[in-house]
Amino acid sequence: MRRLVTLTTDFGTRDAYVAQMKGVLYALGPSEIEVIDLSHELAAQQVFEAALFLRCAVPRFPAGTIHVVVVDPGVGSARRALVCSHGGQLLLGPDNGVLSLALGEHVQTVVLEPERFVTGALSQTFHGRDLFAPAAARLAHGAFPEQLGKPTDQIVQLSWPSLERSSSQLRGKVLHVDRFGNLISNISRDDLSGWLAASDWSRVRVSAAGSGGLPLVRCYADAAVGSPAALFGSTDLIEVAVTNGSAAAQLGAAVGAEVVVRVEP
Amino acid sequence: MRRLVTLTTDFGTRDAYVAQMKGVLYALGPSEIEVIDLSHELAAQQVFEAALFLRCAVPRFPAGTIHVVVVDPGVGSARRALVCSHGGQLLLGPDNGVLSLALGEHVQTVVLEPERFVTGALSQTFHGRDLFAPAAARLAHGAFPEQLGKPTDQIVQLSWPSLERSSSQLRGKVLHVDRFGNLISNISRDDLSGWLAASDWSRVRVSAAGSGGLPLVRCYADAAVGSPAALFGSTDLIEVAVTNGSAAAQLGAAVGAEVVVRVEP
Amino acid sequence: MRRLVTLTTDFGTRDAYVAQMKGVLYALGPSEIEVIDLSHELAAQQVFEAALFLRCAVPRFPAGTIHVVVVDPGVGSARRALVCSHGGQLLLGPDNGVLSLALGEHVQTVVLEPERFVTGALSQTFHGRDLFAPAAARLAHGAFPEQLGKPTDQIVQLSWPSLERSSSQLRGKVLHVDRFGNLISNISRDDLSGWLAASDWSRVRVSAAGSGGLPLVRCYADAAVGSPAALFGSTDLIEVAVTNGSAAAQLGAAVGAEVVVRVEP
Repeated sequence: MRRLVTLTTDFGTRDAYVAQMKGVLYALGPSEIEVIDLSHELAAQQVFEAALFLRCAVPRFPAGTIHVVVVDPGVGSARRALVCSHGGQLLLGPDNGVLSLALGEHVQTVVLEPERFVTGALSQTFHGRDLFAPAAARLAHGAFPEQLGKPTDQIVQLSWPSLERSSSQLRGKVLHVDRFGNLISNISRDDLSGWLAASDWSRVRVSAAGSGGLPLVRCYADAAVGSPAALFGSTDLIEVAVTNGSAAAQLGAAVGAEVVVRVEP
Repeated sequence: MRRLVTLTTDFGTRDAYVAQMKGVLYALGPSEIEVIDLSHELAAQQVFEAALFLRCAVPRFPAGTIHVVVVDPGVGSARRALVCSHGGQLLLGPDNGVLSLALGEHVQTVVLEPERFVTGALSQTFHGRDLFAPAAARLAHGAFPEQLGKPTDQIVQLSWPSLERSSSQLRGKVLHVDRFGNLISNISRDDLSGWLAASDWSRVRVSAAGSGGLPLVRCYADAAVGSPAALFGSTDLIEVAVTNGSAAAQLGAAVGAEVVVRVEP
Repeated sequence: MRRLVTLTTDFGTRDAYVAQMKGVLYALGPSEIEVIDLSHELAAQQVFEAALFLRCAVPRFPAGTIHVVVVDPGVGSARRALVCSHGGQLLLGPDNGVLSLALGEHVQTVVLEPERFVTGALSQTFHGRDLFAPAAARLAHGAFPEQLGKPTDQIVQLSWPSLERSSSQLRGKVLHVDRFGNLISNISRDDLSGWLAASDWSRVRVSAAGSGGLPLVRCYADAAVGSPAALFGSTDLIEVAVTNGSAAAQLGAAVGAEVVVRVEP
């Protein structure tokens, strides 16, 4: 059985970094591994953005998948290198929080010990190639995580940015701006459900960056072309979008901008 | 046998949209599927550009290939979702014309009915993940298109932009500007053949955006470095190029610019 | 056994060029081939940059890998098309030097003769699709290079840019600027070893583009955030980096900028 090994990095592909990692992954035996690109276009060294990415992507993959994640500004420092087992999948990456938002309860974590499995040189500048890819290759070939390092109970944990809640409003912020310029907030469907009965959602108004109060629509095409609208996006977070346009450009909003939900009388 | 499943989207890869689709595709059983990226860099929501892309790419693939195409500004609206069978290949995408230029005669089309095969939630903002990927996975695992929906005879059809022909000239336009700045027109080798005997092609002069009348050369390297030249590109369409430069930048031309073919006396 | 076929181009993926190559590669029989993207983001028509890329990437791959390289400003001209065998791997590309830095001694080279294996049309503008991909597919299916062309002893060879050495300094230059803005020089660990005993390396000072004399640190995280530092990068070349920043932007340096190594008294 071939094991899926996914790659998520901030390397881009103009440099040879990703190519080298692929070489190392396949070098241990190409017929046991299938390498899948998730992204190499993550913003350079933006750990939180990468953690959000994985939170969306990882749950879609089947048990047995191995995810290698390299967004790693601390490479070569004392920061640890991890393999986390969660829901039958394995995630490898630096212990800087990048894996943490994709993990739920019941995670088992091992701190990689290079002397157990690195046979070549171990650079201090490129652990994706010299540490994580060799570890992933071993795992794909049947090694158990515990053979590659020592268990740990503590890893760096990023926290989901919390909302301010009152009886009159939910106050969150823009977590991510996607390629279409959609402003994706940290306010989830569950947050709204816990705050307001669904029967009252027709009176909800969402404002972001001076958009004015926007009612929730069902899909992009339900909003007027060129006007901002609010809706639940594909990860069940409230987003502000402009149909056939960019909300980010039109509203001049970026990550961190305030998003407020109110109820009309 | 593993089935090839290609992906063509306007999602980019900085967001997790493509990654989620790959997860869904592999989740039904990784050993039956091989996912291949064609492009995720299509211009956002530009259906015609995507249709041109597929017109070039699809005919190169072997029978049995499944193509998933998501350039879908109308997601969540009443626009239908299609599976088209053509020449032994299957194409899945929204019914907005994006598939139409890659299809010839003898197409069999099914309108997807989500209730027949979608087991998870069906968002109104991301049918790539929730509708097309699950359908493609089923097809890769052996389902027939008719099991996933109802046949239809009518789909949205984009038309190939027509030429103005006279005895003295063929008048077309720039359809696409590629990464090298080549201006690719809608004037094909067949159009020229139908208009002028091949023995007279040495007298053909092509003009685009003030380029002056350019003779047809055989390949980029046959033209003087830095000067515009006209030639048949790799899809047998007349293009205007600048060797080791960008015709688009040098001539200030973009999609839609006029391209005229004349014959010198 | 499936053969790995890697692709390295300057095509980008917004155009359908790469997609067409993948189609051709798989068309000869998808179960014998696995196509792997190395890069499609190489700078357009920059042969030296592509050659550096391959020098880093190729040695990481296992024997049996087939590399297809298309950075080919001379397509359609008299420039030859090559298959080089080196260390059990095969490299296909134009004879413009692009393969040369990845090859060591003991290379066997064949000049492709299209009439031996090209069954479709051979355009003069896209040999990636019409010549190199069909050749790679044949090789993946078991053809020997000699079946596809004639041996040659001479290929275009790029040279590694040499250093100026004196007793007081090593003078090199910036070869490549990576995505993080790191300035990667042509001065290797071996160059430094041949010039100065390792016990004296703590006194080494590196200057690039007005950076002042920088000591060698071990990894990016060892340098102060925001200040330039020098270190051996992942291919054992001296580079100048700014931790959590871009040395290229901060120092205003680009490819070709001078890099000088001196020893402090």
